[in-house]
Amino acid sequence: MIKKLKYIFNPKSIAVVGASNKPNKIGYTIIKNLIDEGYNGKIYPVNTHEQNIQGLKAYMKVSEIPYEIECAIIAVPAKFVPGILEESGKKKVKSAVIISGGFKEIGNIGLEEQIVHISNKYDMPVIGPNTMGVLNPKVQVDSIFLPIYKLKRPHIGGISVITQSGAIGGAILEVASESEIGLAKFVSYGNAAVINENDLLKYLGDDPETKIILMYIEGVKNGKKFFNTLKDITKKKPVIILKAGKSDISKEAAKSHTGSMAGNYMAYVAAFKQTGVIIANKLDDLFNLSKIFSQPFPKGKKVMVVTNGGGNGVLTVDAIVDNNLKLAEISKETISELKKILPAYAVPANPLDLIGDANSERYRASLELLKKDKSIDMFIVIVLFQTMSMNSDILNTLITFKSEIDKPMVVIATGGEYTRLHKKIIDQYGIPTYDTPEDAVYALRALYNYKKISQD
Amino acid sequence: MIKKLKYIFNPKSIAVVGASNKPNKIGYTIIKNLIDEGYNGKIYPVNTHEQNIQGLKAYMKVSEIPYEIECAIIAVPAKFVPGILEESGKKKVKSAVIISGGFKEIGNIGLEEQIVHISNKYDMPVIGPNTMGVLNPKVQVDSIFLPIYKLKRPHIGGISVITQSGAIGGAILEVASESEIGLAKFVSYGNAAVINENDLLKYLGDDPETKIILMYIEGVKNGKKFFNTLKDITKKKPVIILKAGKSDISKEAAKSHTGSMAGNYMAYVAAFKQTGVIIANKLDDLFNLSKIFSQPFPKGKKVMVVTNGGGNGVLTVDAIVDNNLKLAEISKETISELKKILPAYAVPANPLDLIGDANSERYRASLELLKKDKSIDMFIVIVLFQTMSMNSDILNTLITFKSEIDKPMVVIATGGEYTRLHKKIIDQYGIPTYDTPEDAVYALRALYNYKKISQD
Repeated sequence: MIKKLKYIFNPKSIAVVGASNKPNKIGYTIIKNLIDEGYNGKIYPVNTHEQNIQGLKAYMKVSEIPYEIECAIIAVPAKFVPGILEESGKKKVKSAVIISGGFKEIGNIGLEEQIVHISNKYDMPVIGPNTMGVLNPKVQVDSIFLPIYKLKRPHIGGISVITQSGAIGGAILEVASESEIGLAKFVSYGNAAVINENDLLKYLGDDPETKIILMYIEGVKNGKKFFNTLKDITKKKPVIILKAGKSDISKEAAKSHTGSMAGNYMAYVAAFKQTGVIIANKLDDLFNLSKIFSQPFPKGKKVMVVTNGGGNGVLTVDAIVDNNLKLAEISKETISELKKILPAYAVPANPLDLIGDANSERYRASLELLKKDKSIDMFIVIVLFQTMSMNSDILNTLITFKSEIDKPMVVIATGGEYTRLHKKIIDQYGIPTYDTPEDAVYALRALYNYKKISQD
Repeated sequence: MIKKLKYIFNPKSIAVVGASNKPNKIGYTIIKNLIDEGYNGKIYPVNTHEQNIQGLKAYMKVSEIPYEIECAIIAVPAKFVPGILEESGKKKVKSAVIISGGFKEIGNIGLEEQIVHISNKYDMPVIGPNTMGVLNPKVQVDSIFLPIYKLKRPHIGGISVITQSGAIGGAILEVASESEIGLAKFVSYGNAAVINENDLLKYLGDDPETKIILMYIEGVKNGKKFFNTLKDITKKKPVIILKAGKSDISKEAAKSHTGSMAGNYMAYVAAFKQTGVIIANKLDDLFNLSKIFSQPFPKGKKVMVVTNGGGNGVLTVDAIVDNNLKLAEISKETISELKKILPAYAVPANPLDLIGDANSERYRASLELLKKDKSIDMFIVIVLFQTMSMNSDILNTLITFKSEIDKPMVVIATGGEYTRLHKKIIDQYGIPTYDTPEDAVYALRALYNYKKISQD
């Protein structure tokens, strides 16, 4: 059934059951989103009353649609879902996404079992029920029922997201679109009645468009299977996981010392480490970490820090030490060359503080010299865009430098509108930007760690 | 000399030495900022060549200004500074801010000693040299030499900032203005040749407009004095400190086991804890923590979590446990009342998941019931603004509820433009908003801790 997930992510035709002309209905938003984003497969609205939905011919029932359907998106009250799914199976609909809630999550176990039964009978993969939907920006497949004006969709890219929570999924989508991070596939798997996290992990592990997998999980159906799958996939591509439910430790630990529940979360962490998973400690980490994998692997642990703000340099050194990386010891030659080009009040060292009056040219000349220094494994360039001497020319300097080196490079910049504008551009040219030294260095450390896993 | 700091923060007249008509000069930006922001004291530009600076009458020398000067802002090459300061002292200028760099920080110790000598001779407080400047939004005093289009200034408020690093100071200012956080005073103290962190702490500790003090320090001149001052002030108002230079530990620890340098940072942390300082672990913490002090103190540790996203609720519980706070155990009465108003698929519990289809009215009705529950010490309300049923009416619900309770309340919302718009409004009505559960709960924990210190 895993192979058939292509009909979920890449359907040539979609039936929307529960499609509506009423803006407050989920079935309205799904149709509107498909139209507005320009999904270029066939859309068949299904509505028991209306003959026309948002300008498209509507059908009374799935079985009345006289064409092949690769995916049925179902958004009707729970009690009607098994009937519609059965009808879809008979009609040879290739896959289904059940948006509707009201199943196992509120105790309606029988209703959910019917879905599993029908799915198996027709060998028809089902996402959900109780899912926020599926997104594939490349082909404009979008069953997410949130309006686009409230939640912008990310553009096309190499990151795929598997999330147990729709709400967290929404937050992930928004961070991605705000930060101009492109996605390959997004799936909120809801109750996982049929297709679960392990199936999705396998499918996306083999998906050539997916370069990195991000997951948010609260628990998994079958730990052993899941960790075996992870072991395979982390060798091929980075898997970054945010696992919620830590509190079980603390609660249980307080109650007793048997450690049954406690062992549970600890087991996850241990298994993640063994299987090469990159652990996200907070929501932000998911993208902070994923961005770093656009970079080549570092040869070693030695970091060069270039800055126009002394304090930021100090905080970055703190983070480097905290994360068990090292400051590069630049060569005497580099130091003496730097002396020639820097003003007398700048000290050639690492961190290299170019001083608050540094302009783009001072960055360029310094980076040019550092480029040749073999003691450097990775670059952190801090730019305070607020200084008088800083302007947009720094973009050329950074982007050009990046194109000439084969080492990881990140930019740290903290600031408002003016700074954000520039950071977006830097990100788009393949240099990950971070708000804080902590985030930047944690990401570089993850890149360093993952090198070993991928080369195992 | 500390009392005379009023002339630094609140001068009725300012001379800008090095004022300029050339936009690439620091002395240009300072004059432009004072004019644009509407400083309503007297501005006297000093320039050796020009008779008119940006429409203002200019003077050749400080001594030629025929009026009283309460503050001289000096932005000329280092070698000219002692002469100008001496002239200012003779002319009975009441205080000085030396923007110019090129002193002790690059080894020119003699030049800096001259400044100390002149300052003492005339009992004239000096900020700097090598400072980014001083800001007092209430009276539009602004000697920060960064253009406003690059670095927006925050509005008037109760937070004062003392920073050793200009660059970090700039980042702090930007976060404040972006987040609509108001400032009382801001000072970057640079080399602290005369006025140091301890003097500023004392002054702002007594300043009635300063409700909270934020500090960024890399080191202090006199630890004993500093910690004694802290001990006094933390009883009166919260002092939140970000201390950089942790790496000294690691470096030194690696070199030897004598622990001389290592003891240094550890001593800071220990002393901070003893003196009631609130420790910021990262830059973001400064404001995440400071915002919380708009809230009343909680009676106890018990937190109520209300959400329209299940996953966010789980992550919040994790953070609550991590920070050693507790989930409130709401009463049976509350639970049975909640049952009456909630849809069948929502479970009355803590966290209270109002489900993704919750609208403002469902929040209102639930909060109304929770208001009466005595088991609750603080409220965390999570709002996913992206759902179909959520709209701007939630603002009324939250703001009204807040006005009716005497307990701390925070809002967590993650999202892009649409979400940010709403969060700003919520912040402005005195409910601190946070991006992540971790930040929100860490802040509530700090509020709980500070309660004891302030009541000591």
